[in-house]
Amino acid sequence: MKINIAESNLERIVIVGGGFAGLMLAKKLAKANYQVVLIDKNNYHQFQPLFYQVAMAGLEPSSIAFPLRKFFQGNANVFIRVTEVTAIEYDKKRLQTPLGIVNYDHLVIATGADTNFFGNATLAAKALPMKSVSEALYLRNRILDDYEKTLSITDPEERQGYIDIVIVGGGPTGVEIAGSLAEMRKYILPKDYPEMDCSEIEIFLIQSGDQLLKGMSDEAAKKALQFLQKLDVKVILNNRVTSFDGELVTMKDGTTIRSRKVIWAAGILGAIFEGFPAAAIGPGNRLVVNKHCQVLGMENVYALGDVALMEGDAKFPEGHPQVAQVAMQMGEYLAGSFKRKQQGKPIVPFVYRDLGSMATIGRNKAVVDFPGFKIQGFFAWLVWLFVHLYQLLGVRNKVMVFINWVWNYVTYDQSLRLMIRPHVPPKEVEKF
Amino acid sequence: MKINIAESNLERIVIVGGGFAGLMLAKKLAKANYQVVLIDKNNYHQFQPLFYQVAMAGLEPSSIAFPLRKFFQGNANVFIRVTEVTAIEYDKKRLQTPLGIVNYDHLVIATGADTNFFGNATLAAKALPMKSVSEALYLRNRILDDYEKTLSITDPEERQGYIDIVIVGGGPTGVEIAGSLAEMRKYILPKDYPEMDCSEIEIFLIQSGDQLLKGMSDEAAKKALQFLQKLDVKVILNNRVTSFDGELVTMKDGTTIRSRKVIWAAGILGAIFEGFPAAAIGPGNRLVVNKHCQVLGMENVYALGDVALMEGDAKFPEGHPQVAQVAMQMGEYLAGSFKRKQQGKPIVPFVYRDLGSMATIGRNKAVVDFPGFKIQGFFAWLVWLFVHLYQLLGVRNKVMVFINWVWNYVTYDQSLRLMIRPHVPPKEVEKF
Repeated sequence: MKINIAESNLERIVIVGGGFAGLMLAKKLAKANYQVVLIDKNNYHQFQPLFYQVAMAGLEPSSIAFPLRKFFQGNANVFIRVTEVTAIEYDKKRLQTPLGIVNYDHLVIATGADTNFFGNATLAAKALPMKSVSEALYLRNRILDDYEKTLSITDPEERQGYIDIVIVGGGPTGVEIAGSLAEMRKYILPKDYPEMDCSEIEIFLIQSGDQLLKGMSDEAAKKALQFLQKLDVKVILNNRVTSFDGELVTMKDGTTIRSRKVIWAAGILGAIFEGFPAAAIGPGNRLVVNKHCQVLGMENVYALGDVALMEGDAKFPEGHPQVAQVAMQMGEYLAGSFKRKQQGKPIVPFVYRDLGSMATIGRNKAVVDFPGFKIQGFFAWLVWLFVHLYQLLGVRNKVMVFINWVWNYVTYDQSLRLMIRPHVPPKEVEKF
Repeated sequence: MKINIAESNLERIVIVGGGFAGLMLAKKLAKANYQVVLIDKNNYHQFQPLFYQVAMAGLEPSSIAFPLRKFFQGNANVFIRVTEVTAIEYDKKRLQTPLGIVNYDHLVIATGADTNFFGNATLAAKALPMKSVSEALYLRNRILDDYEKTLSITDPEERQGYIDIVIVGGGPTGVEIAGSLAEMRKYILPKDYPEMDCSEIEIFLIQSGDQLLKGMSDEAAKKALQFLQKLDVKVILNNRVTSFDGELVTMKDGTTIRSRKVIWAAGILGAIFEGFPAAAIGPGNRLVVNKHCQVLGMENVYALGDVALMEGDAKFPEGHPQVAQVAMQMGEYLAGSFKRKQQGKPIVPFVYRDLGSMATIGRNKAVVDFPGFKIQGFFAWLVWLFVHLYQLLGVRNKVMVFINWVWNYVTYDQSLRLMIRPHVPPKEVEKF
């Protein structure tokens, strides 16, 4: 059955994914001469760089998520469908979804990336990913729940497993969570749990390489390490988690850590669906694209952002970094290309402008690499705050995040420490 | 195994439930010469009167919930345990919980009430209750999800079932949801769903009695009915839902409504656990208490709020109304009684002061009954806003709710239309 979308004389561009890339593309095409169909499994765009603050009870999901329908109110040629694409039928120029078949004239894959557990099913079941607000909320509940349970545990070794936290992956996400947790341990937990000796809580950050924040400058990496060590985070470099059974973390060198919580920020995989030819799938499960963002050997099919691996950029032989900047620039680029086509203009290749990168470690502490200069510390932290607030979608969200930040900063408190468990309707009892 | 709570020379008061009654009691005892143990299944207090705004995407759960631990920071004699009491062992003066046994010297049941489905298992499985923020969130997701699905449904009768909503119960909750939904249909849905003809959406409010807002004045009831009808809500009086199979609502008089969503605000049952003698359990599953809030025939056991049914108040022969005011006054009263006991003063009976009641129907519309006078309309609505904001716990929550209200009022928008689905970790795949 075909999905119910109004017939139109316009060519139809189907965009799969409403992340940074897909949303930017749809926004730039909202007034163009195309029918745009935006498909996402959620009815909102989520602002990934602040997931960790949701997990750390500093922000609400609604402050960093924005309803797609609200965004496209008044754009009559944009159609939104909330569903998950399961497969592409390339020869028929159509997609399969639980809602029905979607035909396309042009298809754009902007599905982003999922957590990479390196094929380890036990890890996937036991470790805590953080690639959606739902996962961030789940992590928040797990942390709070474990502290509650700790109070009833008298065996010291068992208790240690409940209070310690292991973070795997020393990229921005791992560094930001570690810093946040360390501050929670310092400022909040002693007040919330006077019955607990919070100095017993240990926070581990495990990084496989020999420095944190791979891809950023040496200064940034060194300063981040220094900030974290000052907050008493145990940073373990040049090691790797090989297994985790839900209670014991084992590392490559054989050492173990007893912890029930392993936050997994150690790698991502392109989030693709069924039906792509093997030749189009590159390392990291990413779709290989040419400099026009077109998927290798697939006409009228494009890929953007984290899921795309662009060939031919000498500066990025392994593809662009999987960050918001690349995604947004590719989205804007492809919208331009579609418009140029209709205007009969030639298509130019995509060029990535590196605007810099940054990570925050806690109150007053961040590291920022701009193309021209590098800063660390308080001023970098202000830059970090400003840039993230600026990029957040929606005035209401900006206001809410700003108030929360000021509030948390002034009171040394993250007051969203609520374990709101999902409601599960009761099963009907069959009568015999 | 005994639950791990510090030994103390003080007498221990165990309070089950951190709602209006339990929280007030614990607050008033926080500096008293008792050890206070507050048990709740959630780690937060929830502000029930605004649940409907969470369901209607106007407020976030975190704005109307407050962490219990934060509330009692600095009160060394208050111990919080997040767990569910499963039974009382009265002869042993102790409670059973999944965390272990809790001994008490004095026990206070402040467990509130659950939705009453009148023993109908199909109703319980299919209808949507609203007695917790989790249930309110679930309802929000169901409403949004169904509108998304509607777009793919071409059969007109099936589509009608997806878009129509039936609300059962004409008390404040039912009236407030009906008004909110009607405004959402008027102001928001046409902008969010240009593909849908929103005038086709029907909202039904079913009330078993012959007027709305039972317990309030005739003026309030009539005005509420008038407000709702002006918003085009189909109010059905003197009828009752007898069954709902998930698709078809059947009423007592045999008429049916096709709707997938039945919001159930038609009655409550005292939320008690195992172990109470049958003689102590009164109508509506409430614990029968004397004028000192002591449960019938149970020494050192008290009940407060929705779960308590006080005998002997001539003005309330069927017990007090199950509202926040009664709960808070009982909590304050019992704290006073405990203190008087230690001071050797005699205990006085509880007297309820009726401060009035109110309900809001939408923008600029509310009905308020004060003991001395009654108002309806815009000024009543301002009173409603002020009273609810004032009673909400925590400065941050007040600020957030206020901003949201102003925002929603000015923009005619409730921007929290996010279906944030709970994360469910994958099951580990066993290898053979």
